[in-house]
Amino acid sequence: MRRITFFNLVAVAMLVGVIACVVPAFGRADKSSDPVYLNKIPSGYRDWKLISVAHEEGNLHSLGAVLGNDVAIKAYREGTLPFPDGAIIAALHYGHVPSEENNKVFGRAQSFVPGPPTNIQFMVKDSKQYAATDGWGFGSFTPDGKPGNETAMKTCAPCHAMASHDAVFTRYAP
Amino acid sequence: MRRITFFNLVAVAMLVGVIACVVPAFGRADKSSDPVYLNKIPSGYRDWKLISVAHEEGNLHSLGAVLGNDVAIKAYREGTLPFPDGAIIAALHYGHVPSEENNKVFGRAQSFVPGPPTNIQFMVKDSKQYAATDGWGFGSFTPDGKPGNETAMKTCAPCHAMASHDAVFTRYAP
Repeated sequence: MRRITFFNLVAVAMLVGVIACVVPAFGRADKSSDPVYLNKIPSGYRDWKLISVAHEEGNLHSLGAVLGNDVAIKAYREGTLPFPDGAIIAALHYGHVPSEENNKVFGRAQSFVPGPPTNIQFMVKDSKQYAATDGWGFGSFTPDGKPGNETAMKTCAPCHAMASHDAVFTRYAP
Repeated sequence: MRRITFFNLVAVAMLVGVIACVVPAFGRADKSSDPVYLNKIPSGYRDWKLISVAHEEGNLHSLGAVLGNDVAIKAYREGTLPFPDGAIIAALHYGHVPSEENNKVFGRAQSFVPGPPTNIQFMVKDSKQYAATDGWGFGSFTPDGKPGNETAMKTCAPCHAMASHDAVFTRYAP
C-alpha cells in the first residue's frame, strides 16, 4: 500500500487530467535500459474526434479535451475492451481560467475557458511493444512539441494501472 | 440598458455555456410570425472536430465540448471573421460531476467529468436567412433530439449579439 500511496501523491503533483505520461524504464528492463516513451507526437491528433472533456482541480486547475484516433473512437463507441492495437488517445490540457468576456455578458463570474496550453499527452495501444504496462505506451509533450519531464512521465503507467477500463480513466461522452 | 440587464438575467438562468438557442420571432417578423429556429439536429455533428471546451458554474454546473463542421474549423484556424455561410458550431453540454474513480486514485476530490447530457446547441451561419440575428440561426435540443424550450431559445440571439467575435463567444483552443 505504501507504493500506491506514493504514486497517488506523485500523481496529484505531476499528472494533469486523466492521461499521463511514460512507460517507466523497468517496463522493458528485459529489452533495454532506456526509458520507453513516445518521443514524437502522433500526427494529425488535433483533427481527431472527441472522446470527452475533463476538469481537474487540486493543484492542477486544468481544462482538458480528450480525443481519439479512428481505432480508439470505434472501440469506445462499440464498447470494445481491451482497446485494440493501434488505438491512440490524446489529452489536450489547458489552464482553467475565467472568461472575462463571458462573465461580463452573464453578469457574474461563472464561465471558465481554456487558458494557455500546458501539455499534450498520449496513450498508444500496442499489446506486444508495451506488454509490461497494460499494452499502453505513454507520452507527454510540452505545448511546443518537446517531450515532457521524464521523472513525471514515469508515474503514468502505475497510475493508469489503477483505472478500471483497460487502464483508461476517460469514458466516452455521448 | 434595462433590456440588456433583462437578457443578462435570462441568460444566466437559461443558457448553458456559450452557445444558445433560437432566432426570436421578431428576428424575421417581416417574413413570418413563426419563430425561426432549427427544428432538426445537423447530421454528423458528433464526428466534427474540436473547437474548445467550456465549464460553466453559477446555477449551470456544466461541462461542455464545442465542435465545428469543416467550414467553421477552417474559419477558426484561419481567423476568418465574420464566419462564412455554411459554418456550424455545436455545443454539447453535460452536467459537471465529480469522478469517483479518478478521485479514488488521486486520493482527493479534484477530478470532474461529464455527467448526463443536458442539451445540444447549434449556431448555423446563413447571412441571408438569418440577417436579423447577426447571420446566425440558433437551435437547442434535448439529449434525445427534440427541440428545446422555446422561451429559453428566444434569449440566444440577443445574448450572442453581445459577443465580440461575430456573435460567437467560443475561441479556438490550440
